[in-house]
Amino acid sequence: MPANLTGVVPPLCTPLTADQEVDVRSLERLTSSLLAAGCTAVLALGSTGEVAFLPDAMRRRVLEVVTGCVAGAVPVLAGVIDMTTMRVVDHVRDAEKYGCAAVVTTAPFYARINAAEIERHFRTIAGSSDLRVYAYDLPVAVGRKLPADLVLRLLADETVAGVKDSSGDDGSLRTLIAMAADAGLENASIMTGSELTVDNALRMGASGVVPGLGNVDPAGYVALYDAATDDNWEIALAEQERLLRLFRIITVADPARIGRSAGALGAFKAALYLLGIIDCPQTMTPQLPLLAEEISVIRELLLDAELTPVR
Amino acid sequence: MPANLTGVVPPLCTPLTADQEVDVRSLERLTSSLLAAGCTAVLALGSTGEVAFLPDAMRRRVLEVVTGCVAGAVPVLAGVIDMTTMRVVDHVRDAEKYGCAAVVTTAPFYARINAAEIERHFRTIAGSSDLRVYAYDLPVAVGRKLPADLVLRLLADETVAGVKDSSGDDGSLRTLIAMAADAGLENASIMTGSELTVDNALRMGASGVVPGLGNVDPAGYVALYDAATDDNWEIALAEQERLLRLFRIITVADPARIGRSAGALGAFKAALYLLGIIDCPQTMTPQLPLLAEEISVIRELLLDAELTPVR
Amino acid sequence: MPANLTGVVPPLCTPLTADQEVDVRSLERLTSSLLAAGCTAVLALGSTGEVAFLPDAMRRRVLEVVTGCVAGAVPVLAGVIDMTTMRVVDHVRDAEKYGCAAVVTTAPFYARINAAEIERHFRTIAGSSDLRVYAYDLPVAVGRKLPADLVLRLLADETVAGVKDSSGDDGSLRTLIAMAADAGLENASIMTGSELTVDNALRMGASGVVPGLGNVDPAGYVALYDAATDDNWEIALAEQERLLRLFRIITVADPARIGRSAGALGAFKAALYLLGIIDCPQTMTPQLPLLAEEISVIRELLLDAELTPVR
Amino acid sequence: MPANLTGVVPPLCTPLTADQEVDVRSLERLTSSLLAAGCTAVLALGSTGEVAFLPDAMRRRVLEVVTGCVAGAVPVLAGVIDMTTMRVVDHVRDAEKYGCAAVVTTAPFYARINAAEIERHFRTIAGSSDLRVYAYDLPVAVGRKLPADLVLRLLADETVAGVKDSSGDDGSLRTLIAMAADAGLENASIMTGSELTVDNALRMGASGVVPGLGNVDPAGYVALYDAATDDNWEIALAEQERLLRLFRIITVADPARIGRSAGALGAFKAALYLLGIIDCPQTMTPQLPLLAEEISVIRELLLDAELTPVR
Repeated sequence: MPANLTGVVPPLCTPLTADQEVDVRSLERLTSSLLAAGCTAVLALGSTGEVAFLPDAMRRRVLEVVTGCVAGAVPVLAGVIDMTTMRVVDHVRDAEKYGCAAVVTTAPFYARINAAEIERHFRTIAGSSDLRVYAYDLPVAVGRKLPADLVLRLLADETVAGVKDSSGDDGSLRTLIAMAADAGLENASIMTGSELTVDNALRMGASGVVPGLGNVDPAGYVALYDAATDDNWEIALAEQERLLRLFRIITVADPARIGRSAGALGAFKAALYLLGIIDCPQTMTPQLPLLAEEISVIRELLLDAELTPVR
Repeated sequence: MPANLTGVVPPLCTPLTADQEVDVRSLERLTSSLLAAGCTAVLALGSTGEVAFLPDAMRRRVLEVVTGCVAGAVPVLAGVIDMTTMRVVDHVRDAEKYGCAAVVTTAPFYARINAAEIERHFRTIAGSSDLRVYAYDLPVAVGRKLPADLVLRLLADETVAGVKDSSGDDGSLRTLIAMAADAGLENASIMTGSELTVDNALRMGASGVVPGLGNVDPAGYVALYDAATDDNWEIALAEQERLLRLFRIITVADPARIGRSAGALGAFKAALYLLGIIDCPQTMTPQLPLLAEEISVIRELLLDAELTPVR
Repeated sequence: MPANLTGVVPPLCTPLTADQEVDVRSLERLTSSLLAAGCTAVLALGSTGEVAFLPDAMRRRVLEVVTGCVAGAVPVLAGVIDMTTMRVVDHVRDAEKYGCAAVVTTAPFYARINAAEIERHFRTIAGSSDLRVYAYDLPVAVGRKLPADLVLRLLADETVAGVKDSSGDDGSLRTLIAMAADAGLENASIMTGSELTVDNALRMGASGVVPGLGNVDPAGYVALYDAATDDNWEIALAEQERLLRLFRIITVADPARIGRSAGALGAFKAALYLLGIIDCPQTMTPQLPLLAEEISVIRELLLDAELTPVR
Repeated sequence: MPANLTGVVPPLCTPLTADQEVDVRSLERLTSSLLAAGCTAVLALGSTGEVAFLPDAMRRRVLEVVTGCVAGAVPVLAGVIDMTTMRVVDHVRDAEKYGCAAVVTTAPFYARINAAEIERHFRTIAGSSDLRVYAYDLPVAVGRKLPADLVLRLLADETVAGVKDSSGDDGSLRTLIAMAADAGLENASIMTGSELTVDNALRMGASGVVPGLGNVDPAGYVALYDAATDDNWEIALAEQERLLRLFRIITVADPARIGRSAGALGAFKAALYLLGIIDCPQTMTPQLPLLAEEISVIRELLLDAELTPVR
């Protein structure tokens, strides 16, 4: 694994069969499609991978399939999302067992924890294995933002190797990047998880992107990233604008009928199903499925974005 | 198990050794002390039991020890707290294996779920075993309150056998009790999780109480409950007032230094340690420990409440 | 004004004409009905009085009409609700001008203020006039709860004369009452704003109640209060249970169609209109009105509660 | 006023004397400095102008001074921030009286309002005068984000002329810009209120910026904007990076001691005081002042940003 994770690192969807088992063939096809598109790593078991919904046996199965399929071609990061420290450490052991290169974890949630305890959480997890640790900043799920000064301390002594910032707050992302640069933390990987402002994040000095939408259009995000690194910012902008419109698939489902997680994750899976990458758009219980007419709208949005549905 | 759970059902603390293993002897002493005091059931692995902090192996060990110690004398309820449905179902299987009588579960958290999906969550869990299911309403951890109409539907068709209401909102608790009574749901167990208004809850028709502080003073809560059922409301009130002052132990730790979970759970354990029930006041990582001077204050508060520290 | 405000102090609705002017006759009839029922004081311009929606000229008109109608028979409290300190002080001047006995104010909102600044806010307001100040604890509007230690400091040196606790958290209300008692603050008026647990609040030592529903059924709340002070707790309980069912009027409007403020305030006004107390159920813009069929349901609920609609 | 507001529109600080009166000379100097720097308009009474803290008489005084000083050179926008519709309309009348070109208003706050009522709020305000209305999206103060579909409807029929987006969420800003473009709304002014990502916002098609920090360094923001409109994106980036570091002044005050509003607004005023633009760094009650040593740190940060303190 390179010292500094960069590029496009999609958080893999977890394809399921109709009876909610891991669909191995579909997962392999999806993983392969990401590698073929030029992704620099993959994140298994991120929020987009429905990690919150998967029992441990299914989590392990996902790691087994993905690491087997990738076979060392790129690093595999594993989401080790759980309520608190020692539960996370159990998932770290699984990640280690399957040969993952790194783990991605949030601050604790459910319990009422203070900043000193969040720091202890990350330090304990980092000390529990040789795997790299990335801090995952996801206020919408965890209930609060990671404090910038805490993240910098963790980066400074290499407790964490980087951050996946899914806060949607690009001002604070930029501040973190600047503070890390001012502190000489050249190896810190500060990745954005915001699909819609990747060109901006890269201009600001972000290391790369972890885009849920990258499951559906990995080539688009790789093209965006490559244009940015080649200083072709107009091309990056145009690609981002195209992907922005594609991202409307996550708002197709009626939020009065199904939850927002189901609406977004179901849309990614519906798109992958329509594109022929996965065999079934099933999401995990208790998420409700998209309606047939919603899937038809997604089909139109794929065509608008110059993708080619096969169904 | 009786049709309608009533009485005092403490959510057991999980005593730990200094190296954060389940302290079996202490857990047995604590469990026995609750039975000796006249508790009608016990809840293992509630929030007070640090369920959010315990890895699965420790959760199972707790169930094994508690069910072994109780040996059928009273029902054992198991907290099966996890992010979403199928993860909860795995914990239900463990509860079943160890002979628990019922499980207690919250709505999903971390993911963005709507009310229809919460309903599906409870129905799926209820359908996964023969154990009774209690809905646990804990907005401070889950991020929102269970809607009353949803709870009533689940009670009406016996998807859930009852509710543990830890919302702290006694107006909505009373509304739920009234709506359940008006709907003829005589077997619904509507338990309060609020330690400070138990007399009120019982006057309003609540079935019983699940008091974290009941670990420290089970006899107090049983006396309160018994006085209430005997219509000795003045005695119930006096007992509640005494327990209210004892409850100040959870505010002793400085919230600027350690988190609120650690401050409360650490205080219960410090009290149990001072009372000689458990051997060590250790809490799970990443919670920070109470300071020696804070424990001294707790000792004074125990004395004020007419309890007898042995340390 | 007595040293210690007690009893039933309804927060007056503000009756409006169809073109959203203060309906003086209706406001006088409403005020008179509360005095006739035995209320010990009235609160003009509380949240129930749509204070947040009324321009300053209408606020002044309300104070003029209510103080004129009451004519010294009972104290008139004035809600002086605004974003921050010096804006509140302007409203205090109006309250003074119209001869109000006291003002009721929340912590600042909209701006991001800390606890020390909240304390400064109350001290500045208290220092700006000779009127008594009551602290209004309304987390649902202000965004956070008043810290108990801050309230106690303000009570201890008589910066505030009391608290209206509309947090719905009866455990913290009881803690505040106990802490005030332990500190010897016998004159502190700790009033509950929770319509559904008044008997409980009075058992716990609250001084009285500020019930929005008291506009609709002041005699009910007075009967509840009188029974409680006579130690007839069973009568108090029965009355509270009747009022609990009457309170369902605030849930009649469809929350998917109109806001929760409009649903509750509109229901109070619809009930007062049906009972012949006010001439028009109009609420202030931008609140949407109840539908005719919703008003019919409210009519049924009034009958269920043994009230007598005249329309 | 041009059809489409663009460029740099600072939200004026409100300089105060030590006894918290509007400091007219300082306000005039500040306003003149912004015009001299090339700002295209000014916003009086924004959140940065402490609008939440100013009584109505002071608000009017600010409008009088600013419109007098500007004397038609550029449009003056007035913040008309208040809890609900008819209170806002009163402020609109003041804005009209003093010859402001437009008003800026948030959704209602304090009361519990739904989306249909927010829409009615903006429509009523727009109908109350001939002034243009800008919607102000400030979730941190109002408690929620303006829904994009609602904003688009208001833009489409010119109920509002534009939006000031201070949500900090650049992904949703970009989505709004794209949706407005796709709907052919060429005259919609979509301004960012985020000081740290202005180059990004302009690249994404934003019309301009309303930067609180623009009080301190208006020339910097004008240089950034001009570089962007000249397609000199590297210069824009460098300027933004310099301003990002200058923005650290708002984090100098200890958030454990004073509130976040006071820390930020006090820092802007301290900087203006050090730069000789205003005579006194006083903020409105109940905000606590910065400490002398904090002001010294701000002095260093000004020097780092190549500004020239005169004190």
